[in-house]
Amino acid sequence: MEDLKGILNACRDIIIYLQTITYLPFRLIFIQCVQLYPLALTKIEESSYVLLFHTPRKKWLTKVALDKRFHTHLGIIDVSSIIGMEYGSAIRTTEGKLIFLMEPTIHDFIMKSERKTQIVYPKDLGYIAARTGLKNGSKVLEIGTGSGALATFMASIVKPEGHIYSFDVNSEFMEIAKRNLEKAGMDKYVTIRQYDPHQGIDVRGADVATVDLGDPWTVVDQAYDALKGGGAFVAICPTVNQIEKTTAQLRKSGYADIDCVELMIREMEAREGMTRPSMRMIGHTAYLVFARKVEKLQERVHQPASEEEEEEEEEIGNKEEQVSE
Amino acid sequence: MEDLKGILNACRDIIIYLQTITYLPFRLIFIQCVQLYPLALTKIEESSYVLLFHTPRKKWLTKVALDKRFHTHLGIIDVSSIIGMEYGSAIRTTEGKLIFLMEPTIHDFIMKSERKTQIVYPKDLGYIAARTGLKNGSKVLEIGTGSGALATFMASIVKPEGHIYSFDVNSEFMEIAKRNLEKAGMDKYVTIRQYDPHQGIDVRGADVATVDLGDPWTVVDQAYDALKGGGAFVAICPTVNQIEKTTAQLRKSGYADIDCVELMIREMEAREGMTRPSMRMIGHTAYLVFARKVEKLQERVHQPASEEEEEEEEEIGNKEEQVSE
Amino acid sequence: MEDLKGILNACRDIIIYLQTITYLPFRLIFIQCVQLYPLALTKIEESSYVLLFHTPRKKWLTKVALDKRFHTHLGIIDVSSIIGMEYGSAIRTTEGKLIFLMEPTIHDFIMKSERKTQIVYPKDLGYIAARTGLKNGSKVLEIGTGSGALATFMASIVKPEGHIYSFDVNSEFMEIAKRNLEKAGMDKYVTIRQYDPHQGIDVRGADVATVDLGDPWTVVDQAYDALKGGGAFVAICPTVNQIEKTTAQLRKSGYADIDCVELMIREMEAREGMTRPSMRMIGHTAYLVFARKVEKLQERVHQPASEEEEEEEEEIGNKEEQVSE
Amino acid sequence: MEDLKGILNACRDIIIYLQTITYLPFRLIFIQCVQLYPLALTKIEESSYVLLFHTPRKKWLTKVALDKRFHTHLGIIDVSSIIGMEYGSAIRTTEGKLIFLMEPTIHDFIMKSERKTQIVYPKDLGYIAARTGLKNGSKVLEIGTGSGALATFMASIVKPEGHIYSFDVNSEFMEIAKRNLEKAGMDKYVTIRQYDPHQGIDVRGADVATVDLGDPWTVVDQAYDALKGGGAFVAICPTVNQIEKTTAQLRKSGYADIDCVELMIREMEAREGMTRPSMRMIGHTAYLVFARKVEKLQERVHQPASEEEEEEEEEIGNKEEQVSE
Repeated sequence: MEDLKGILNACRDIIIYLQTITYLPFRLIFIQCVQLYPLALTKIEESSYVLLFHTPRKKWLTKVALDKRFHTHLGIIDVSSIIGMEYGSAIRTTEGKLIFLMEPTIHDFIMKSERKTQIVYPKDLGYIAARTGLKNGSKVLEIGTGSGALATFMASIVKPEGHIYSFDVNSEFMEIAKRNLEKAGMDKYVTIRQYDPHQGIDVRGADVATVDLGDPWTVVDQAYDALKGGGAFVAICPTVNQIEKTTAQLRKSGYADIDCVELMIREMEAREGMTRPSMRMIGHTAYLVFARKVEKLQERVHQPASEEEEEEEEEIGNKEEQVSE
Repeated sequence: MEDLKGILNACRDIIIYLQTITYLPFRLIFIQCVQLYPLALTKIEESSYVLLFHTPRKKWLTKVALDKRFHTHLGIIDVSSIIGMEYGSAIRTTEGKLIFLMEPTIHDFIMKSERKTQIVYPKDLGYIAARTGLKNGSKVLEIGTGSGALATFMASIVKPEGHIYSFDVNSEFMEIAKRNLEKAGMDKYVTIRQYDPHQGIDVRGADVATVDLGDPWTVVDQAYDALKGGGAFVAICPTVNQIEKTTAQLRKSGYADIDCVELMIREMEAREGMTRPSMRMIGHTAYLVFARKVEKLQERVHQPASEEEEEEEEEIGNKEEQVSE
Repeated sequence: MEDLKGILNACRDIIIYLQTITYLPFRLIFIQCVQLYPLALTKIEESSYVLLFHTPRKKWLTKVALDKRFHTHLGIIDVSSIIGMEYGSAIRTTEGKLIFLMEPTIHDFIMKSERKTQIVYPKDLGYIAARTGLKNGSKVLEIGTGSGALATFMASIVKPEGHIYSFDVNSEFMEIAKRNLEKAGMDKYVTIRQYDPHQGIDVRGADVATVDLGDPWTVVDQAYDALKGGGAFVAICPTVNQIEKTTAQLRKSGYADIDCVELMIREMEAREGMTRPSMRMIGHTAYLVFARKVEKLQERVHQPASEEEEEEEEEIGNKEEQVSE
Repeated sequence: MEDLKGILNACRDIIIYLQTITYLPFRLIFIQCVQLYPLALTKIEESSYVLLFHTPRKKWLTKVALDKRFHTHLGIIDVSSIIGMEYGSAIRTTEGKLIFLMEPTIHDFIMKSERKTQIVYPKDLGYIAARTGLKNGSKVLEIGTGSGALATFMASIVKPEGHIYSFDVNSEFMEIAKRNLEKAGMDKYVTIRQYDPHQGIDVRGADVATVDLGDPWTVVDQAYDALKGGGAFVAICPTVNQIEKTTAQLRKSGYADIDCVELMIREMEAREGMTRPSMRMIGHTAYLVFARKVEKLQERVHQPASEEEEEEEEEIGNKEEQVSE
């Protein structure tokens, strides 16, 4: 089994390579492989992970193994019996409860990850990617590995060409992060080092630098050196004091387009004739501070504070935009 | 110039390939290239795009060309003069105003895209990626191309192996979407077809299916056929009536893990000693409905409505999770 | 003790009366009484209520009585010993924990009220008063008494001249509401009747009509008859379906200025150097639908749907306002 | 005209008095008067105010006068012609547009008030009343009169027995506030003084003290002296720095039950089959800091910071509450 998987993976890497270089003649091979590929891989195999899903609040992530039985308060699940089944299939516990076998996504791995720290939540993960323009192939500096949720997510986007260079001083967190990355299959796209980034970082030309420390303002200069011109900085800040100090430092250290936001997420309970927002809600996770590296200058561009002034400018700005090609 | 770029790109592809397969002995070469690479590529070239950045509200996206002059209300910018400069550099308009030359990110291309429809906003784009587990290599079905913002974003993540198969009935939107995708360099990863998806779709094994139509509930079955087992469905719904009808249809059509959310984003104005949330805010863009394809069954899993009941279950669920490997 | 209190209350009523009618000569007496009045009443008396306050989450509302001992997990509080003490004073439990003796406000009575139904929350109570212009002397129709929280709050504002006429079909709720109103001392300003308002209501000339039913759209016409011209209607609606049906009915039934809002409240944890929003938050309580009774007409005023159109109108509107005296 | 009004008012006062004291025998008279009363008073009179209402965004507040013509971009309104009409009636402009004649509420007076400062918004006004337990008869200290919106609102609740003692150092604001209070008929319940409250305030026994200054923490001690034991303090703070400093000072100065919140309000656009939140929204107005005056002590009650700890306590607390009478 392992051999077949290795061969498939090797094939896949070669195809990616061939496709990018020569493109046309290998197109047919590529298409065939793409057609075969999902059929081959959506079967549940030994030692792969499966999400045992009953309801959104009753779901468990586990590794498939021979002779494994998984105990829940809904009854026992015979995990060995699911080997060879397709993802999406339904089985029953010993108590007759329905369990769907889901292929875990990066979202599932993150939400079910081992934690010693507060993780970055999906609403914030997603916006970090969307706002910085993180994309396939991006090179990323991460200061503060934590439990590895952000690294796992970013690696899943930038891989296989891109890479995450992550630093943390806490060896315990690093071990947890490594385990979480391995489970999600993202470990080879993330290099974690136990190192204090205040001493300077040898990464250069990064597209994105993320900071998840208690004092993000202290590594603004180190991130500057690591970023390429125009590269995106982002700090994850639970408190308002952190954003105040970080933005002040960013203004001094050669960054522009400084922007601080908070995202709130609320569930809707959609039921025919009685739809309403959920009474439960997480009040706050973190603020996100964004900026871009620019040439260091003495002069500072004035950014108007008052709403009225901005309003007026925007209007003019929009008209001007029409000039653009 | 083009030749040099071609060689550099080829080098890069080879290195990526080598790195993935054999890893260790080529590590040194790889590091050297990574060091050289950003220096070579962050220079602004003819016919590439540049973001002329003054403030967050005064910025323009334009294509670099010889003899091009760009008129703004802050003075004229001599675009031809920036060829060869590095991204992040500062220049001045004829009126002496400071302009930073930014390499446009996917975020910039989307925010400055040509539109005939409401675009999907970054907060929603990001969460769609984070929640569905969209990742490099994913195969995506998109029903409703619109102005192409979502396709541009998703392509930037799934490329080069992954692909977006997008459908729209409106030929005008398709032309706009194509132009937007080309500008952002994402056109080769997205196949747009003018086609009514109600007739059935020939895409199979998709990891993710997105729906951005006025009546998303009418294509829930077509998306089901296109998705792989456990694959993620997401509909972008401005109104509560859409989420009510869509979730009702999803429950009938073989989906589980149905979940509907709304994201709100608010800017913080961080200034020393006077930090506060922005008085401006967008009230609403859209709700997002998520679900996963599972085996079709007669039986439905009961999901408790009352908050108390759920609370209790969660508690038990958490304990059980410890059982997991 | 009771006699003294009765005399004081009688004095107070007379003074109010005198003051309103003749005003000037009795001013001195009035001022003297106001000076004496708080001194007399801020002492804790037998059979008055006291809020035993340890922290915002550990506080208890109880009636003062001789020989009463109040058991908490922080130790026992000797309630009889507090008779004669001033509000705001601190005592200790048998375990040495600090307890502040607070005079319960209407807010405390509502938050500690006996409930069989969801109560209207302070954020919504307050906005109902502010938006309808509820004030001292207002006459109010309440359809759906529930646990009496809204009636308690409104009575505390409109008393002693104003009055709340409240209707409910559920006798159990009525008994609870009556007990809650009595505790808060508001019972004489609220008339509760067990009656189905669908049959028509004999209240006329009401300034405000509140509706807290599952199907508020069914009593829109009855509220119309009870309201004075221009009088304010408000419905408390947990679901979006309720607001959709209620606003549709209001448009048909001779109402204008129809307006639907939702309020969200979030706590801030203010601590020096680590201030941030609370991670806890209630996601949703109810939507509030407001309207005003106007002359019934065939013609309907067109209210623009698109944002742009409204924007433009507002601008003109603001200029016009300057014309006003 | 004025004589008639005076007689009616006198009647009303007497009836209120009789009702409160003796209640039963005068019930019939009372009911008759209530029936007559609205008919008599809802007629529009000369020199009263009227809200000329077209749509929520096109409405004007004006004083009724003989020979007055009111110009709008919807045509001219003959104001003198509306004398004697009932509130709620519809008229037409010279261009045939529909205008409803509304009796202005306190809400209308506040929203259409003359301003030189940011006013306190209805969502915040309402919550201040609901949270502090402001009620008919309350005595209030207001530090920072501003444009008088908060004083107008509070006076409408506490009148006629209660009173607002308001202080401001800016004579221009005071004049505006006085004009706004007069228009709304609340001037006799509010005493405004030009005075710097930092020097100490001679108000004593206040139920509520409100602070709307740039540096609210500087008057926390003065408010303490003015409040009765257990009396409620509230500060209106646009920035997070203000709440941080104010809560720190409150902890030092003999206050308990310190609580800081933010309210957000969002409109819903309720239309059949296309209901959704409004795309417009005000992002932020102010935070509100609440506290209660208690005995000054050396010891401070420990309030747990971590969420988990609080959770646990709450649970115990709820159980204990059952002990209460």
